[in-house]
Formats: sequence, C-alpha cells, structure tokens
Amino acid sequence: MQNQLDVSVDCVLFGFDGEGLKVLLIEQGLDESGSLSKDQVQTALPGDLVYLDESLDASAERVLKELTSLDGIYLKQFHTFGDPQRVKGLKDQDWLRSFRANPERRVITVAYYSLVKMEDYQPQPSSFAGKAIWVDVNEIPDLAFDHNDIAEKALTVLREELDSKHIGFELLPEKFTLSQLQLLYEIILDKKLDKRNFRKNIKKMDQVIPLDEKQQGVFHKPAQLFRFDKENPED
Amino acid sequence: MQNQLDVSVDCVLFGFDGEGLKVLLIEQGLDESGSLSKDQVQTALPGDLVYLDESLDASAERVLKELTSLDGIYLKQFHTFGDPQRVKGLKDQDWLRSFRANPERRVITVAYYSLVKMEDYQPQPSSFAGKAIWVDVNEIPDLAFDHNDIAEKALTVLREELDSKHIGFELLPEKFTLSQLQLLYEIILDKKLDKRNFRKNIKKMDQVIPLDEKQQGVFHKPAQLFRFDKENPED
Repeated sequence: MQNQLDVSVDCVLFGFDGEGLKVLLIEQGLDESGSLSKDQVQTALPGDLVYLDESLDASAERVLKELTSLDGIYLKQFHTFGDPQRVKGLKDQDWLRSFRANPERRVITVAYYSLVKMEDYQPQPSSFAGKAIWVDVNEIPDLAFDHNDIAEKALTVLREELDSKHIGFELLPEKFTLSQLQLLYEIILDKKLDKRNFRKNIKKMDQVIPLDEKQQGVFHKPAQLFRFDKENPED
Repeated sequence: MQNQLDVSVDCVLFGFDGEGLKVLLIEQGLDESGSLSKDQVQTALPGDLVYLDESLDASAERVLKELTSLDGIYLKQFHTFGDPQRVKGLKDQDWLRSFRANPERRVITVAYYSLVKMEDYQPQPSSFAGKAIWVDVNEIPDLAFDHNDIAEKALTVLREELDSKHIGFELLPEKFTLSQLQLLYEIILDKKLDKRNFRKNIKKMDQVIPLDEKQQGVFHKPAQLFRFDKENPED
C-alpha cells in the first residue's frame, strides 16, 4: 500500500529579544559554493528526516542541539502535517534534489515548537547546514514547503498555551521585570493588556518570586526583578 | 537513511451513554475463522495505514466512516506517537504478520480523537475488520502496541479542551438537560461540580439555548431541555 514515504521533524524555535517575538529560520542554498544568488536561496524552518532508530522527540532534540548547541530547551510536539503534495512544489523539488536521496518521496512532518531565552543563544553564521537568522513573527518571508502554515499554527498554539501552561517564562531572562513580562504577553497575544489587572493576576501566582534585586544599567528608574520557579506548586 | 517506515492513523472514539464515558475498541482475531480462543484476540483502537495519496485527516475520516458509517463526526488530531519499538512486541508482531505486508516495519502513528453522540451510533457486530465494542474509559483492557498510552493521552487532551473548546456538546443528544450536561462534565473531569456554580456558568453561554420543551418518558419530574448552537458567537 505504501512504501515510499519519509517522516521528518520541523522545529519552530521562538525567541524574545525584549521588543518582538522572533522565529529562527535557516537560509539554505542549492549548492555548497557559499556564494548564492538570491533566487537560489530557500528559507525554511530547521528540520531533518527522522533516523530509523530514533524517537520523534529525540529527532527534534537532535535538530535543535545541532542548531543551537543548547540542552534542555523547552520543546513540544504540536501537530503533524501530511498533505501528500506538501513537498511537491517546483522550487521545493529543485531544492530537495540538491541534498536528499529520494526527493520525490512524500514526507510527513511532525512539527515541534520550542522556546529559547535569547540571552542564551545567538545564531552563528556557520551553525547548521545554512545561515540561521532570527526573523520577527510579523515579517516571516515565503518559506519552503508548507513551513508558513507550520509557523502560523505554532504561533496559534503558543497563544493558546501561554496562560494555561505558563510557557512565556521560558522566553524571558532568568531575572525579569513585570514590564518585560507584560510586554511579552502583549506581543504574543497581539493586544494591549491592562497593567493593573495584569499585575494583580501575576501576583496571585506563587511561582513568580520577587527578588531583592533591581535592574542595572538602565536609564530609567530601575524596576524590581522577579524570577519564575517551575517547581513551586501552582496555587 | 530511512526507507522502511510506515505511517498510520489511530482513532480514539469517545461516546457518552448518560452514565459513563466510553471508548470504542476493536477486537480482532489472528485469522478469519470467526471463532477465536481468548489469547488469539487483540484489542486495539481503530486505525489503518495512511494511503499514499491521502491526507492524514482524510485517512482518519476514512477509518471512522468505515467503522460507524457516520459523516461529520468531530475529529481532531492530537498527537503523533513514534517510539521505534512501538509495534515490536512479540504478540503485536504475531498479530501484524497475520494481515500486514511488512509487519516488521517501524510504524509512526498519528492519533486522532473523536466524539460521537451515542444515540447516532451503536456498533454493529459485523462492522470494520473485527468486533467493535464500547468500553468504559475506566475499564480499558490491555491493548495492542502503545494504544493504552494513546487512549490515555486522548483523555488528557479531552479534559483540557472540554472548557476551552466546548467540545462536550458533541457527546450529548441534540436536546439535553442541564443535569445531563453536568454529569458529562463530572465524568470527563472525574470530579464533582457544584450545581449552582455550574448552572450559573452555563447560563452565561449564549450558545446554550433553552428550548420550550421538556423531557419525555422519564419517571422523575421532567426537566427543561436545551440545545447547543455552534454558530452563535461566543460572548
């Protein structure tokens, strides 16, 4: 019935730089020459075929580790994309032929999103099999395959899980101010939040621990710092 | 890298009979003889390999349609299971050898859960490639492969989405009482709810429409009936 089918993982890696929500993209050329004309470049989410003896989670961890050298990044499977035509576009096929053994095969991809503190990771030009770049989520260019759909769905899931699973803290520095936290929520949810209500709700959370420290090196009046304690039981 | 890999879909079909939450399982024998000794029977979630030209959703719809003859059942992809060893158990391999062309292949399975009104569907002994049975979610026997994990995860997701997506109504008859609705929530969430608070919250929902009708054929005082209107905008 089926015997010509591959399975891959693709990762939507989000970062927050204090101003906007970013997603990590890979610019890859059609050859290894290093100098590429613009129409030879494909921009894509980081991903790879799953090795035959490796679990899906292990595969996604491998892709992220190769990319960022970081361990223990927050990583979550969120959807599997399996349109039979998803890698069959002309440009996609040209690109696949340049590096994949069976470019014509259908590929079903298991998508993960992950969250990284940008203070921990800045992409290196030489990392991964191409140039890694941070792009604002509102300025994502045309991507290979169905990667625009995958990135959009990841953002939807991120929004849904922001409150229910407190995942926003994964994107903040270890020590953060309440203004930074509110800005992060506003950017992910794409709406303004009322400062008083926001602070009231946050202060109800036993996991947000006030520190006896203030910001340093800022021009404005330094604000109090907080940290997030995952281990603290939820109230 | 990989060329011996299959992809399947598996469906966790939930039903509610007014007393408990049920899941549909398939009892399949090792041969087609019809009379089977107990240790020859495998119990499993309904599922099948994905056809090469079919999307994942279409594949899950096909499995459910073959099983229930129903169209338009609520169906949602929730997780993909890809442990390299997930079909490699001895009993699983014996079973797979009886009907699959390449039983030794790794199979990655995309899991869906779906919700059906039990008034619309009672399994027929001859349906699907085995005997379909409703089993209470608290009494699920040992299933083939990792199907116990899949069923458990489906239940977790069902609990999470009960409130956020109002999916509980898919399990109720077209017209229902508030007691039936509360019982459904209590059974899915596995906890008692306060009747007054529950009714207060439900009455805030514009989508729950009171009808000018009461229950019929009940021994107790007939209660008012309601229906759920998906199209009504949320308040």
